[in-house]
Amino acid sequence: MSDDVTRRQMLGRAGLLIGGATAFGFLQACGGSSSDDSTPPITEPPVTEEGPQVSQFPYEQHLPAGYQLQSASTQEAAYHAYYNGGCCHGTYSALLGELAQTAGAPFNLLPLDFGKFGGGGVAGYGSLCGALLGSVLVVNMVVSNATARAAIMTDLMRWYEEYPFPAYVPVAKNAKEDTGVTLDFSAANLVQLQRSPRSHLCHASVSGWCAANGVSATGGDKLARCARLTADVAGKTVEMLNTYLSSSAYTARPRDEVSAACVSCHPGTIATKPVASGMECATCHADKLGSHF
Amino acid sequence: MSDDVTRRQMLGRAGLLIGGATAFGFLQACGGSSSDDSTPPITEPPVTEEGPQVSQFPYEQHLPAGYQLQSASTQEAAYHAYYNGGCCHGTYSALLGELAQTAGAPFNLLPLDFGKFGGGGVAGYGSLCGALLGSVLVVNMVVSNATARAAIMTDLMRWYEEYPFPAYVPVAKNAKEDTGVTLDFSAANLVQLQRSPRSHLCHASVSGWCAANGVSATGGDKLARCARLTADVAGKTVEMLNTYLSSSAYTARPRDEVSAACVSCHPGTIATKPVASGMECATCHADKLGSHF
Repeated sequence: MSDDVTRRQMLGRAGLLIGGATAFGFLQACGGSSSDDSTPPITEPPVTEEGPQVSQFPYEQHLPAGYQLQSASTQEAAYHAYYNGGCCHGTYSALLGELAQTAGAPFNLLPLDFGKFGGGGVAGYGSLCGALLGSVLVVNMVVSNATARAAIMTDLMRWYEEYPFPAYVPVAKNAKEDTGVTLDFSAANLVQLQRSPRSHLCHASVSGWCAANGVSATGGDKLARCARLTADVAGKTVEMLNTYLSSSAYTARPRDEVSAACVSCHPGTIATKPVASGMECATCHADKLGSHF
Repeated sequence: MSDDVTRRQMLGRAGLLIGGATAFGFLQACGGSSSDDSTPPITEPPVTEEGPQVSQFPYEQHLPAGYQLQSASTQEAAYHAYYNGGCCHGTYSALLGELAQTAGAPFNLLPLDFGKFGGGGVAGYGSLCGALLGSVLVVNMVVSNATARAAIMTDLMRWYEEYPFPAYVPVAKNAKEDTGVTLDFSAANLVQLQRSPRSHLCHASVSGWCAANGVSATGGDKLARCARLTADVAGKTVEMLNTYLSSSAYTARPRDEVSAACVSCHPGTIATKPVASGMECATCHADKLGSHF
């Protein structure tokens, strides 16, 4: 936990995304809706006669000098938001909520519920992990330097491939969490459940973790794992954005050595079996680890 | 080409995204920027004292009764926009541009350049095809019924896996297209270049097509293919959105038979090797097509 964020502050931030009057007021202020997707918001549209506009993109230009996001409160908000709309909603609403609360317009003119489509790798398809997608969308909102923007996105996906999820320990357990949980997610035991996905795709990430832990991909254990993973990704995104915002630059970590060897023979520039990819190769192409001529 | 869209109208729409004074005016009106990502827009923010707001999400509520998107002009715009910012920018800016032009706010309050991050499967990583991602983001903006929204996204990705790209024939060839093109992309020869990706991922889609056609993944042929694919995806998205908008419902096509058989033994609900996925299985798991106990 960072020194400048107390447990009470974190609970306060997280509470905004859990429910109740406080959350409703916040969602109204940010233009989101806490009701079903098909119900139009009942609030009056915000008056935006002056100040930063949504059209003035990207939004780094609207951040004050020296601006930094808070990590701990954003992670806790992401963990709770997962139970209210999935992994993409978790990172998206937590990161956007942090920006809306601390930087104002145009972040507070955007709908907080935009990320609900991305859960389970886009509508449950198993594609790009929704926690990554929610983060990528907010990174895209903020970062004005196109080279650094691509580097942050690449670095986030490469970090995800190797990170032993889940690592986050919630400050307060979500009320929905106990349903169907059979594994021990306590801080003392969490390391026993951890596994690196070796892929940025929801399909491989979820299926592999569930198989390794002997649980279904639809039960409470999967939810508890992905809620913590969502907080892990949100926290890493805060770290990356803060690094960029304090230096106006970002450099992605290099590819793993095995994948680097793959693309040394199969660069995108050749006409015979070129490979267009920045991801880890061996996860899906283990048969190519030896000689394959 | 649909009966109500003439060749001149299509060229006019497409021209908005190519360049010149017309495009600049349009981008200004829609709040986008035609300049480098790192340069803040020079336009004054639009006055949004009344009318639909960006916060009032999703935006189907702001569409007039009977609203339908135009396919042909959107496809041509997507094709040209590809050469100005990649595949995700192609579908995103063409679909959002169509909505902004024909339905107004809040679509015309959003930045047209938001999709440039997604090219090459998110910052060139080879993940979810950017043309799909740009379309998914706009589908998410429009569709208020969460069940139909997920069905459209699933259907679009499943359609993509099997579609023999590229199929679109531009009305007017983009000025940037001739650079490095060695294959014959004429309407008469296009069928010779077509290949179904069998994956919704940029990595497999691009690498497989380039290998099959004996070209690099970085040259003009790849660009010409992906520009046409971008138009194909934009057109399919228009068709899907129009189906939904005229019926308020949508049903995704079922999984392919092989994948359906895979998940009959490996449903997400079991604790031993559950599979979390909606995508085609055999593309990456060909070794599992026979007995694998």
